[in-house]
Amino acid sequence: MSATSTTPLSSTPRSSLGRLAERARTDRDDLYAVLDAGIVCHLGIVLDGAPIVLPTGYGRNGDTLYLHGSTGASTLRAAAQGMPVCVTVTHLDGVVYARSVFHFSMNYRSAVVHGTARLLTDEQERMDGLQALVEQLAPGSWDHARLPSRKEMAATSVLALDLAEASVKVRTGPPGDDDEDVANPAYWAGVLPVRTVFGEAEPAPDLIPGTPTTPEHVTTRRSSQARP
Amino acid sequence: MSATSTTPLSSTPRSSLGRLAERARTDRDDLYAVLDAGIVCHLGIVLDGAPIVLPTGYGRNGDTLYLHGSTGASTLRAAAQGMPVCVTVTHLDGVVYARSVFHFSMNYRSAVVHGTARLLTDEQERMDGLQALVEQLAPGSWDHARLPSRKEMAATSVLALDLAEASVKVRTGPPGDDDEDVANPAYWAGVLPVRTVFGEAEPAPDLIPGTPTTPEHVTTRRSSQARP
Repeated sequence: MSATSTTPLSSTPRSSLGRLAERARTDRDDLYAVLDAGIVCHLGIVLDGAPIVLPTGYGRNGDTLYLHGSTGASTLRAAAQGMPVCVTVTHLDGVVYARSVFHFSMNYRSAVVHGTARLLTDEQERMDGLQALVEQLAPGSWDHARLPSRKEMAATSVLALDLAEASVKVRTGPPGDDDEDVANPAYWAGVLPVRTVFGEAEPAPDLIPGTPTTPEHVTTRRSSQARP
Repeated sequence: MSATSTTPLSSTPRSSLGRLAERARTDRDDLYAVLDAGIVCHLGIVLDGAPIVLPTGYGRNGDTLYLHGSTGASTLRAAAQGMPVCVTVTHLDGVVYARSVFHFSMNYRSAVVHGTARLLTDEQERMDGLQALVEQLAPGSWDHARLPSRKEMAATSVLALDLAEASVKVRTGPPGDDDEDVANPAYWAGVLPVRTVFGEAEPAPDLIPGTPTTPEHVTTRRSSQARP
């Protein structure tokens, strides 16, 4: 999942950053890093001319992003029919307190992927996509769970989106107040870091005798969303 | 920000949940709770027929959601021209490890708001919107920062979105494996809680002598994103 590459990201007009272009990252590795650190993406699709943005899981394998859902989900159905989609992954790293209201901000890393998703039909590719999805959500779990039955596979749509057009934006560091505000000691300024952390695992209440104890890939899981 | 109300959320077709309707919450208070606990929303808009989903800040005052941005930002400009928008706020509360790959899931709270944003022109309403935005990002900060100048106000678009059409979805609790998997002790199952926490404040490196120490509204800030 962390193969390196020096292929630059595409730079179409919509994936080029008009505002605050100095926050743009153009290395494909930056895209991989932001995607790989996430658990939830926000999937955007157009239905009846209006945008719909829904949180959902995702997975990555090389330059392919996988999405999945019930075959009955209207957003997935629309995406599967070749509608353009947008997949955004955001990590909030800090709240930036400035001296001036105007310069309050956030430290964050975000990746925005544009494209048209393909509904996968090859059973092996579908299974590979689901593996990427499960491993993104719960690393190490694919080998510690019952794999999908034929019936479960039939109820699941798996979509693939090429990582061909994407933008990555990162803000780090202290507030960027104007010089005259920096020269004025009236107001404090700084950054309050934000982190996503895991708590202690809560075993299901209906585990039956003989079930293994909480496995190491769960107990030792550390947040990959921590700041770099 | 936490006025209570018993007005139900709208239930248009797109704000009604087709899939997993048992996860839907229909109280307006549930919508307020999810929105008020967040820092980042994902704003969806349609540009040239394709969806764009961007992370951004927001604020709420009663049944109005505020967005803001540079007057030069293309997404904000489109939203200000009466294009339909979708604003989604998601809190990830846990990773749900099931016995079967099919039932892996997330515990989460999400709010999806549909509507058409209005570009505010009244200066007092614009200032009220910015206050709601700053207080959402950094509670207590409006009274501890330099307020916007006329020039800064001119560079800022403030948009309002009525909370008229929205859906709220919440998943809590252990995995929902099939009976035959529950009866099989082969695999562990449970929930790994996810929390968003604040670190220790990092004062700006260029604070000048005489600046107040880190204020209490920063040092005592606790995550409102914690699970209820």
